[in-house]
Amino acid sequence: MSDSPGAALRDLRERKPLIHQITNYVVMNETANATLAIGALPVMAHAVEEVEEMAAVAGALVLNIGTLSRHWIDAMLLAGKAANTAGVPVVLDPVGVGATALRTETAKQILDEVRVAIVRGNAAEVAALAGLKAEIRGVEAIGAGAGGLAIARAGATRFGVVASVTGPVDYVSDGRRTAAIANGDPLLATITGSGCMASTITGCFAAVRRDALVDTAAFALAAFGVAAEDAARGTEGPGTFHARLYDALYALAPESLDERANIDDA
Amino acid sequence: MSDSPGAALRDLRERKPLIHQITNYVVMNETANATLAIGALPVMAHAVEEVEEMAAVAGALVLNIGTLSRHWIDAMLLAGKAANTAGVPVVLDPVGVGATALRTETAKQILDEVRVAIVRGNAAEVAALAGLKAEIRGVEAIGAGAGGLAIARAGATRFGVVASVTGPVDYVSDGRRTAAIANGDPLLATITGSGCMASTITGCFAAVRRDALVDTAAFALAAFGVAAEDAARGTEGPGTFHARLYDALYALAPESLDERANIDDA
Amino acid sequence: MSDSPGAALRDLRERKPLIHQITNYVVMNETANATLAIGALPVMAHAVEEVEEMAAVAGALVLNIGTLSRHWIDAMLLAGKAANTAGVPVVLDPVGVGATALRTETAKQILDEVRVAIVRGNAAEVAALAGLKAEIRGVEAIGAGAGGLAIARAGATRFGVVASVTGPVDYVSDGRRTAAIANGDPLLATITGSGCMASTITGCFAAVRRDALVDTAAFALAAFGVAAEDAARGTEGPGTFHARLYDALYALAPESLDERANIDDA
Repeated sequence: MSDSPGAALRDLRERKPLIHQITNYVVMNETANATLAIGALPVMAHAVEEVEEMAAVAGALVLNIGTLSRHWIDAMLLAGKAANTAGVPVVLDPVGVGATALRTETAKQILDEVRVAIVRGNAAEVAALAGLKAEIRGVEAIGAGAGGLAIARAGATRFGVVASVTGPVDYVSDGRRTAAIANGDPLLATITGSGCMASTITGCFAAVRRDALVDTAAFALAAFGVAAEDAARGTEGPGTFHARLYDALYALAPESLDERANIDDA
Repeated sequence: MSDSPGAALRDLRERKPLIHQITNYVVMNETANATLAIGALPVMAHAVEEVEEMAAVAGALVLNIGTLSRHWIDAMLLAGKAANTAGVPVVLDPVGVGATALRTETAKQILDEVRVAIVRGNAAEVAALAGLKAEIRGVEAIGAGAGGLAIARAGATRFGVVASVTGPVDYVSDGRRTAAIANGDPLLATITGSGCMASTITGCFAAVRRDALVDTAAFALAAFGVAAEDAARGTEGPGTFHARLYDALYALAPESLDERANIDDA
Repeated sequence: MSDSPGAALRDLRERKPLIHQITNYVVMNETANATLAIGALPVMAHAVEEVEEMAAVAGALVLNIGTLSRHWIDAMLLAGKAANTAGVPVVLDPVGVGATALRTETAKQILDEVRVAIVRGNAAEVAALAGLKAEIRGVEAIGAGAGGLAIARAGATRFGVVASVTGPVDYVSDGRRTAAIANGDPLLATITGSGCMASTITGCFAAVRRDALVDTAAFALAAFGVAAEDAARGTEGPGTFHARLYDALYALAPESLDERANIDDA
C-alpha cells in the first residue's frame, strides 16, 4: 500500500480507476474534470436501471446530495448497496445537511442503509449530521469556527466512518486518530463545487488505497490543497483560479506533493 | 436604503444574502459562481419536498425556466408562494418564452400564481410575454431591435412587475418610470447563461434592496455590465472572457461601480 | 452546397442555425458554449411537452445519452421522430454504450425508431454498437486501438448511417467511402465533454450541409480539431485549454480552416 500522498497519486495515475459519481447538477462538469485532471476516469450515471451495474465495476462510488429529488435518492441507495456488495468504497458528501429536513434525512438514510467509508463535508454539515450545533446558510458553512477537530472526531464516532472535514485547516478522523491538513488557498471558497471536488478527489484516492483510510483521505486533501496553492499563484480571481485548478491537478508531481503536503497528527 | 449601485454592492457583501435559485441545468454552475463572485451565497434546490423550506429563509428567490419539466414547474410554484408568504422577493427569468407553448404557459402561470417582483429577460422574451410581436429562435432573441424601451414598459404594465429587459442598452421599467443602463460588452452575447447571470445578480441586489425596485434592478445590471467591461479588456474570446467575468465580479469596487454605472432616465 | 470546411463554416455563421440538443447534465453548458462559439444558436429542451415543437423548427437535433433516465429517453424518441418528419438531420452521440445494458439498449432503440443521419462516438462506443469487441471503462474508451477505420465502416454499414469515430485520427464513413481526419490535440482527452462538443459541432455543420454527409461530418471534425490545435498552443493544462477552446472556435477563420484541415480518403 502506498505510504505517502505522492505514492498514492502515482498509483492512481497508473491504475486510472473509474469513479462513479451520483452528484448534483451544479458541479457535475467540475467534478468530472477534476477526476480526469488528477488522472482517474469519471462516470456520471443516475438511472435506477443502471447504477448498480456501474457501481459494481467502479473503483469508488461518490454520493453527493447537493441537488436532490426522489428518484436520485433511490439511485444513491441502490448504487451504495451494490458498491458495498462488490467491495467498492463509498464516499458521501452531505451537501447542505442541516439546511432542510430532506437533506438531513437523506444523508442519515444513506448512512443507515449503505456502509459509507468516508464522509467529506464542511464543519457545519458534519456537525449537523453528528447532532452538534452549527450555523449553515443554504449550502455554505458560516462560522462553525475552530471546531473542525472536535466535529471530525464526533462525526466519525457517531457514524463509524472516516470523517473528513474541510476548512481553513482540514481534519480527518476515524474517532481515535485524527490528522490535520494545512494545505489549500482561500480562493477555494470563492468557487462553487470546491468541496464537491474535494470529495471526488477523495474517491479517486480511495479507489487505489482502500485501507488506513484516515491517511487516504488526508492524502487526497493534501493533493487537492497543494494543487489549489499552485492554481492561486499569479491568479486574478475566482474564474481564472478555477481554470488553473485543473491545470494544477493535472501537473501535480508526486515528488512535489510529498514535499509540500502539510499533514500532522492532531 | 442604499442610494447608489456601489452602496447596494457594499450592503450585499456585508450581508451575504442567500439566493435560492431554481434554474436550468445549463447554467447552474455559472449562476452559482456569479452569486459567490459578487459576494452573496447561492443555493440550488428543486425538490418539492424542500423548496418551501429553503425559499422561506432565502434573501431572494430566482426562478428560471430554461430547462423545464413538470416537477420543476411544481417546485417553482411552491417555492414562489412560500417566498411570497415570507416576504422574500422573487425574480423570474422567462427563458425562451415564445419558443414553445410550454414555456409561454409556464411563465404566465408563474406570473399568475406567484407575486413576482422583477422579470428579467431579453427583448423577445418580454415582448412575447406581453403579447407584442418579436422573433425568437430557441432561447435567443433575434432582432427585437430598438423596442427594448417600449417592451419594458409594456411588460411592466401588463404584469404589474418591474420589467428588466437586457440588450445592447438595458431598460428597466415599472410602467411609469423607466431607466436605461448603458453598460456591458458584446462578448456577453457569445456565452450561454449571461442573461441567466444577469437575473441572478438582480436577485442578489433585490435581497438587500427590496423597495424602489426600478433602481435595484438598474443597479444590478450596471454592476454586471461594468464587470463585463472589465472582463472584456484584453480578453481573447468567449472562453477567457467567461473566466475573467467571475474575476471582475469579485474584484468590482463599489466606488468604481458608482463612477462607471451608466444609468439614465429613459 | 459548400465544398470545403471553410465554406461550410462561412454558411453556418451566416445562417446561424438553431441546434436543439437533448444531452447529458455534465456537458450542457459546454456544448451550448461550443455552439455559440462556432456561430450557431443552441437550445436545450427535454420536456416531452415541448421537444417535438422545438425539434421541428431546429436546424439539427443532437441526441446524447450521457446521463439517461426514463423520461429523457422518451423525450429523445419523440424529438427524433419529429425531426424526421420535419426533415431535420439527427446526430446521435451514444455516450458510454457498452458500459451498461441501459445505454446499449437506448442507443439501439433510438437507431431503430429514429432515422439518424450521423452517429458520432469514440471507437469503443461505435464498436460496441456494431457488435465488435472493444474495451470501455465507464464512458472512456480504453485501447480500441488502431481499429477506428474498420469500426467506422462496420458501424456505418450495420446501421445505415454515417459513422464518425473520433480518436487520435478520426474516421468518418458511410460504409463505402471513408475519410480520415488528422487534426486535434491530445489535450482534448483531458477534459470531459470534448466528444460531446464534437457531436454538437457535427450537428452545427449538418444543419447547413445536409447532403454528402461524410464530407459534412469530416468538415466538422476538422473545424473542431483545428480549433483544438489553436487552443493548445501556449496553454498550461486542461483548464486553460478548455477556456481557450471556445476562444479558438470563435476566432476560427474559414481560410485558415481550409488550409489546415487535414482530411484524406482512408
